[in-house]
Amino acid sequence: MKKIFLPLLALCVLSLASNAQDAEAKLKELKIELPVLGKPIANYVHVVRSGNLLFLAGKGPSNAQGIYTTGKVGKDLTIEQGQEAARLTAINQLAVLKAELGDLNKVKRIVKVLGMVNCEADFKDHPKVINGFSDLMIAVFGEKGRHARSAVGMCSLPLNMAVEIELVVEVED
Amino acid sequence: MKKIFLPLLALCVLSLASNAQDAEAKLKELKIELPVLGKPIANYVHVVRSGNLLFLAGKGPSNAQGIYTTGKVGKDLTIEQGQEAARLTAINQLAVLKAELGDLNKVKRIVKVLGMVNCEADFKDHPKVINGFSDLMIAVFGEKGRHARSAVGMCSLPLNMAVEIELVVEVED
Amino acid sequence: MKKIFLPLLALCVLSLASNAQDAEAKLKELKIELPVLGKPIANYVHVVRSGNLLFLAGKGPSNAQGIYTTGKVGKDLTIEQGQEAARLTAINQLAVLKAELGDLNKVKRIVKVLGMVNCEADFKDHPKVINGFSDLMIAVFGEKGRHARSAVGMCSLPLNMAVEIELVVEVED
Repeated sequence: MKKIFLPLLALCVLSLASNAQDAEAKLKELKIELPVLGKPIANYVHVVRSGNLLFLAGKGPSNAQGIYTTGKVGKDLTIEQGQEAARLTAINQLAVLKAELGDLNKVKRIVKVLGMVNCEADFKDHPKVINGFSDLMIAVFGEKGRHARSAVGMCSLPLNMAVEIELVVEVED
Repeated sequence: MKKIFLPLLALCVLSLASNAQDAEAKLKELKIELPVLGKPIANYVHVVRSGNLLFLAGKGPSNAQGIYTTGKVGKDLTIEQGQEAARLTAINQLAVLKAELGDLNKVKRIVKVLGMVNCEADFKDHPKVINGFSDLMIAVFGEKGRHARSAVGMCSLPLNMAVEIELVVEVED
Repeated sequence: MKKIFLPLLALCVLSLASNAQDAEAKLKELKIELPVLGKPIANYVHVVRSGNLLFLAGKGPSNAQGIYTTGKVGKDLTIEQGQEAARLTAINQLAVLKAELGDLNKVKRIVKVLGMVNCEADFKDHPKVINGFSDLMIAVFGEKGRHARSAVGMCSLPLNMAVEIELVVEVED
């Protein structure tokens, strides 16, 4: 009996541990360096906390030099380039979370994502594009990174950026 | 005095009862059968709960066979067809709530709806279209179904679906 | 020691007082008169409260006579006219808050704003337009008015209104 019980217990602890994956360690493992957070491009703030919820402002795909990936996905950019833009946006939102919380492990759950794609009237692959954002969140946070989401098409975005993504995050007390 | 008081009391109780309308019974009365919930079309989940709030992912007008109503409302589809698509989306979101809660009567309030219509630049009747969603929510939940809402025009939506609608719902403890 | 301490204390109290700026007095100082709140233009309500959060429905730039500023910003309207439309929308949302709370000083924080601009595919100045909304919120509420925000481009809006803006507000117990 004991012979069966101990491996089962070990498996169970292992599984719990994987649920509580270390987001900071994962970031290093993925070789992702968070950018220094710039000022918002207009009269607003990056994030507001209300209770245990963080409401993050929409951000776009700016790189470490502050240069945006621009253009309409499906026309000026391929779907793969759109995905890369969404991944870059995820890194920028991780920088917001890091600046706000100090430690990414204080994230309890990525709750809700609104993924907005700059595209034309006949574009149909918004979910594929925004997966570039969602995949990274799940890679970094594990199960806590799984979120509800809408992925939709905008006729235009600020500075002609390729995507703009906002999110709601639940944090530990 | 008593003769007036008792009918008034009965009316009052009746009115309270109608506020607390049985959503499951109403669904049967409306002859609505909830579809089996499929998997999300990309890397996200149907719903995330944070405290007493459910954040539901954007869904579209897929029927029981999983086929979407597609096209631009006002061009490929009439307003009435758009409304029908919004109603179908409401049924799909009710299926999400049912799967999450087990019992639709655990819904305390439909809080906030974002109704996104796939349409062209000159379309003006987004509110009429999204009423197809709102009318059904209010039919099913009564006063608890009344929500704050935005109804807006998107240049495109995933798979060219006619509408995509997301919502925030408050649930009982 | 005392000589340094007292002015510092005064400064500190002054600073606290400025954080807790009187929103009602500020509104009078800005000579802004809130309009009488009309009925929503479709089957929804202006606002729903859940816990300490108010979710406000999307509103547009209607004036005291109920007439909307219409057209696409950057084409039919200049950026300045778009900003004025966003400011008008802020006044309408303040009217919603006033009707809901009785006293604007019950607002604890403007949390999150989604600013949607009616525009064409090549428009890039959404943040400038939505600043017309954000600037007024910060003028009225001071630090409590600073919010997270997305500003994005819609292919069309109800009645062809120039902007539609929704928001989440935290209120005192």
